[in-house]
Amino acid sequence: MNLIIDAGNTKVKLAIFKKAEIIHLETVATYDFVEAVKKTFKDFPQIKSAIISSVGSLSKEQINIMAVFCDFYELSNASKVPFKNSYASPQTLGVDRLALATAAFYYKPHSNILVIDAGTCITYDMVNDFDEYLGGAISPGVQMRYNAMHDQTAKLPLLEKKELLDYIGNTTENCIHSGVVYGVSHEIDGVIDLYKGRFKDLTIILTGGDALFLSKRLKNTIFADSKFLLKGLNYLLEYNKH
Amino acid sequence: MNLIIDAGNTKVKLAIFKKAEIIHLETVATYDFVEAVKKTFKDFPQIKSAIISSVGSLSKEQINIMAVFCDFYELSNASKVPFKNSYASPQTLGVDRLALATAAFYYKPHSNILVIDAGTCITYDMVNDFDEYLGGAISPGVQMRYNAMHDQTAKLPLLEKKELLDYIGNTTENCIHSGVVYGVSHEIDGVIDLYKGRFKDLTIILTGGDALFLSKRLKNTIFADSKFLLKGLNYLLEYNKH
Repeated sequence: MNLIIDAGNTKVKLAIFKKAEIIHLETVATYDFVEAVKKTFKDFPQIKSAIISSVGSLSKEQINIMAVFCDFYELSNASKVPFKNSYASPQTLGVDRLALATAAFYYKPHSNILVIDAGTCITYDMVNDFDEYLGGAISPGVQMRYNAMHDQTAKLPLLEKKELLDYIGNTTENCIHSGVVYGVSHEIDGVIDLYKGRFKDLTIILTGGDALFLSKRLKNTIFADSKFLLKGLNYLLEYNKH
Repeated sequence: MNLIIDAGNTKVKLAIFKKAEIIHLETVATYDFVEAVKKTFKDFPQIKSAIISSVGSLSKEQINIMAVFCDFYELSNASKVPFKNSYASPQTLGVDRLALATAAFYYKPHSNILVIDAGTCITYDMVNDFDEYLGGAISPGVQMRYNAMHDQTAKLPLLEKKELLDYIGNTTENCIHSGVVYGVSHEIDGVIDLYKGRFKDLTIILTGGDALFLSKRLKNTIFADSKFLLKGLNYLLEYNKH
């Protein structure tokens, strides 16, 4: 059994893989991380290896607690990857995006794949049919847009995502919902169209916490799997063992 | 002469109108407002009336300094407007959007007009050919998106808008630029397409601090005028005098 830890910008996911299958999955707040790790190893003593991908929200001390329990591997920009990394600044590439590109590579090797992860940020990552990772884009995620309009203006309220009847908001709240939800949807549809114009037979994968909410609103038919990044990390753990 | 003051979320514009023409325009930080007002009245003693539109960044004390110098009018949700306001919650409608709708109405009365103001936030405001203001949307502006990704993540740098060669960013900085610049452009193009589908002979006006930067990137041809909101305020000052 492998323990896969994805420490994102706002929360931490802990997944237990038995071969390629997830048999346990939980999400905790950053400050609950150490307690959650202790409990996980108590409940699943069969865990032999672990990998952790942290985009910066966990401290070095929190991460090092892992060494008490098993062989553990911290994903970094220096980790081995099964594709050619053509990013011009690999030392600044987020490890979460490395995991997404790995998952894309294993999902459909030697093909053009665009992975869109709609989480705290929305990341776009392209792996082409020569197994090269090209990079992509990073934009604000759904809740980040709501937070920003509240934080950076004097009067706009803080809201959370909501299904909308019409794109013409007739109250300030509906205007904000329209701006976020239609804004993100048009952005993703537009970006997909750009990539489709350049890469033939493009496979598009939508993942992340807002994938399901967004997938209904996108004109381009895409595959949504919220566990995609975790699978990439599990592959990277096995790949870096050797 | 009229003094028109537009106090937005991050800065304050002071414009002097002689009839419908702007003869002086300056932009100051919120904390320099009182000094700027004093200097303006010293330099232009011919100013007889003033209007102020504040979305919340100026204090009551700062605004009241105006009364020392001339007849002044503070735009509010209770101000008279030359169109039918069909917003369901007029008491929460930002006064800046009231000014944009007014400017749209005078620019081309009895026609379908969508005003897009790309400032701190991007606002979308629709006035239809029955002279009804319908509402629209509010989304994060260009710099707000950069700020949000820096503020709400552990590692992303704070950047400012930049021209981009390609939408596939191959460094973290280029990824962020791509996410913001292509994200905003696709959002605006997508929203315009939605409105075009519903309103015939739609006139689209792009205004605000990022209008020029964005107009080159938009597929829909649109008219850009950075002084649009100020003209709306000048109309509202005259309209509310009677």
